Amino acid sequence: MNGADALITTLADNDVTACFANPGTSEMQFVSALDREPRMRSVLCLFEGVATGAADGYGRMAGKPACTLLHLGAGYANGGANLHNARRAATPVVNVIGDHATYHRQYDAPLNSDIAGWAAPNSLWVKSADTADSVGPLTAEAVLASYGAPGGCASLILPADSAWSDTAVKGPVLTPAPRAKVSQADAEAVAARIKAAKKPVILMGGSTCLDAGVRQAGRIAATGVRVLTDTFVARIARGAGRFAPDKMMYFGEMALADLQDVDLMVLVETVEPVAFFAYPDRPSLLVPEGCEAATLCGREADGPAALQALADALGAPEAAPVEALELPGLPSGPFNPYAIGASIARHMPDNAVVSDDAVTAGLPIWQSTKTARPHDWLCLTGGAIGQGIPAAIGAAVACPDRKVLSLNGDGAAMYTVQGLWTIAREQLDVTTVVFANHAYRILNIEMGRTGAGNPGPAARKLLDLGEPRIDWVQVAGGLGIPAERVSTPEAFDAAFERAMNQKGPRFIEAAL
Amino acid sequence: MNGADALITTLADNDVTACFANPGTSEMQFVSALDREPRMRSVLCLFEGVATGAADGYGRMAGKPACTLLHLGAGYANGGANLHNARRAATPVVNVIGDHATYHRQYDAPLNSDIAGWAAPNSLWVKSADTADSVGPLTAEAVLASYGAPGGCASLILPADSAWSDTAVKGPVLTPAPRAKVSQADAEAVAARIKAAKKPVILMGGSTCLDAGVRQAGRIAATGVRVLTDTFVARIARGAGRFAPDKMMYFGEMALADLQDVDLMVLVETVEPVAFFAYPDRPSLLVPEGCEAATLCGREADGPAALQALADALGAPEAAPVEALELPGLPSGPFNPYAIGASIARHMPDNAVVSDDAVTAGLPIWQSTKTARPHDWLCLTGGAIGQGIPAAIGAAVACPDRKVLSLNGDGAAMYTVQGLWTIAREQLDVTTVVFANHAYRILNIEMGRTGAGNPGPAARKLLDLGEPRIDWVQVAGGLGIPAERVSTPEAFDAAFERAMNQKGPRFIEAAL
Repeated sequence: MNGADALITTLADNDVTACFANPGTSEMQFVSALDREPRMRSVLCLFEGVATGAADGYGRMAGKPACTLLHLGAGYANGGANLHNARRAATPVVNVIGDHATYHRQYDAPLNSDIAGWAAPNSLWVKSADTADSVGPLTAEAVLASYGAPGGCASLILPADSAWSDTAVKGPVLTPAPRAKVSQADAEAVAARIKAAKKPVILMGGSTCLDAGVRQAGRIAATGVRVLTDTFVARIARGAGRFAPDKMMYFGEMALADLQDVDLMVLVETVEPVAFFAYPDRPSLLVPEGCEAATLCGREADGPAALQALADALGAPEAAPVEALELPGLPSGPFNPYAIGASIARHMPDNAVVSDDAVTAGLPIWQSTKTARPHDWLCLTGGAIGQGIPAAIGAAVACPDRKVLSLNGDGAAMYTVQGLWTIAREQLDVTTVVFANHAYRILNIEMGRTGAGNPGPAARKLLDLGEPRIDWVQVAGGLGIPAERVSTPEAFDAAFERAMNQKGPRFIEAAL
Repeated sequence: MNGADALITTLADNDVTACFANPGTSEMQFVSALDREPRMRSVLCLFEGVATGAADGYGRMAGKPACTLLHLGAGYANGGANLHNARRAATPVVNVIGDHATYHRQYDAPLNSDIAGWAAPNSLWVKSADTADSVGPLTAEAVLASYGAPGGCASLILPADSAWSDTAVKGPVLTPAPRAKVSQADAEAVAARIKAAKKPVILMGGSTCLDAGVRQAGRIAATGVRVLTDTFVARIARGAGRFAPDKMMYFGEMALADLQDVDLMVLVETVEPVAFFAYPDRPSLLVPEGCEAATLCGREADGPAALQALADALGAPEAAPVEALELPGLPSGPFNPYAIGASIARHMPDNAVVSDDAVTAGLPIWQSTKTARPHDWLCLTGGAIGQGIPAAIGAAVACPDRKVLSLNGDGAAMYTVQGLWTIAREQLDVTTVVFANHAYRILNIEMGRTGAGNPGPAARKLLDLGEPRIDWVQVAGGLGIPAERVSTPEAFDAAFERAMNQKGPRFIEAAL
């Protein structure tokens, strides 16, 4: 056994069984060791940002980390933006970052860089396994660290000589500690404040948005307390048969208007809400004046259990109202995200997973699918576009029996377009939709809001993607995915229905 | 004037007149200010790695920095790998990284991250302009810092409120100090050591590889001293009418065999050579045993002037032999990188610029073009693939009257494939060639060298790009570039000749 074997065996022993990889020379021992550990599924990604986004999507759906395999500091950097999103999603991810042999570092060869420095901003944990004997134990430590609480990225640097040297040391199997519990007494205290408030709301995030937490939130809502989620959550269970909390609005002034007269905001696995961006003369903090905040529990705690305790304390009914299945008819009229949302709602099968990087098209589709068949929705948690295709890859690897939808703005899809090839290679059951509006549409909105005025010719050129128009059918086809372009609600509906009725990769360019 | 105006005006006053941009909300003031500063040419890139690689290519050809416009820490991360290459090339680059408003940072909004931490590993200089009045002066400081010596990345963080607030303060025009000179006495001392040595060599890098330095190196070679360059240099002037130094071989054992019995290595704008990667039982340092090193000058100094002083001290002739123009005939036989190299040598026009990210195909083409028409060659300095297309963009913007060739392995091209769109959008005179061997070919070689053994099925899957095969003609066509696929020497020759005889974007998939 060499260090690379110790690494992969320890990963598998700790139930890390998926690896999203873009290896280089310094990772050849790891690659070779994959042949000796059948429990590990490796997935080649043609760019590290695909690998890290896939690990994020995998972790959100599997509830356990995948590992990435990255090539030194530059490879890590390429994956950095989607690890930023993973950090914001609190997704457990174990990065394995190959490095030069320990004795070679001193020579500062061309690919040498400060890997630990690169990894620090995104990582809960960064260590380098500088001997073969340390690889296994540090691997177990990394997996444990990735669980948080809450979860996040652990980055293990693997020098080439640690990988190729012999060792007899595997890492232990470590079990993450259970999340902290809120006591019934603390829940009662919060319940008392809710009862005393005129207009209380619950704001929840993190793991409370999974099925169990949403169910408890529905019980609380049944007592008359409004429940909202953060604007962007890692994963939320929604659709027919489930309670549908509201969500914080994206633009701060709308959020504050929506929260008018709220006098108590109870925070569950989240913190006081803030505007995504600052704008001149607009507020940063989205808590109405005079509103008190009460933290039921922070992100490190067991939010669903805390909500259950709170629901009990409020005397909430065991069974609360949920959304009934209600599917729209065949859309017609103008071809826009609402029409597309109707088709998605009509045809999306039970238990689908939606990977949302649709930017301006996202909200209409979100709204359209409120009463669709039950599904999970993955949001762009960190604001770094280019998550939609990679996260869909990870979700499909984690959940091979579920249909995955990848919804992407054209600007966002171009960031990690290489991911389409991995979907084709692995024949993942992913339908990718690109909303081709040929613009960074959101920036046309934001330009006015930041007080930057109307764009002139030079500014317009930086917001426009329409010259030349990207032919997405060619791009996706060239990367191995059967693709079509549609430009009417009826055509989209038919194309989307076809995609839902088959298994495997499909691509639809929605030409808006 | 607001802070964004101060920034762009100060850049233009300091002769920074090209901006490779992928903006977001926090950069809208910068975008708007572009309408008010006609001296600045802005080029939209659909991914930050394209923007930073373009700035690197621009800087190598223009000898002055371009700026990039990046969206917070995640945008910087996406551009990090090509900035690593720029750092290794010592290319002056000014990164402008938008940030949240200063007062908004405390709320840790979703896109918030440690921008300075991200930027540190690649940057000579990182500062944040936290008031509008500081923007102009810090901009001038950043431009100056980017010149080095030697050059590199300066990273200016621009909070949104510094950009939108009024200011009356522009930055000064600053002039970089001239590079340090080697005294004639020091040159004489090195010359004496050369004369005393049995088998001396010169190893040169950095700016010595531009035309003036190569000319002086040729004079020294005429005295019987062998001259080599680093394996990967930022830019080298070569072809007919120029002296052709050898270059350090890539694999360490070959390099050491090539340097056998060398007893003196004179270093000019470089350091002692090291192997690109470490391998079990192979040396890291590529200096033969018993060989002394003598530094004529470091990377901070004026290498061409130092070489001239050394040539004079060696009594070298003023006019030294150069390569005569010698063009191969129409290639035939097997379709491989040598055949392609012959066609490139035959048809490449005077003064072309070659952006080389061709990995295993690169060396054969390098060898084939030694006596082609004079041209400049840009190497992959930092080993982070994905440089070829972006650097070609930058070179074409810097040198609109020169034909630019972008040579790419298929694995490398996929990293920053989005750059093809920018070439189309700007109608740059770039011919892109992708060597489609459907594999990370270099890794098949490296796997054996690292002692990892023969790849089994799981390992092979991580080295193979052939399932599915990427249809590059569709991908390039979808991004707006006329493209064709060729699979014989004759067809490549004809396609390449056509590309050379017209102006504007062309794409050739060499199906190997």
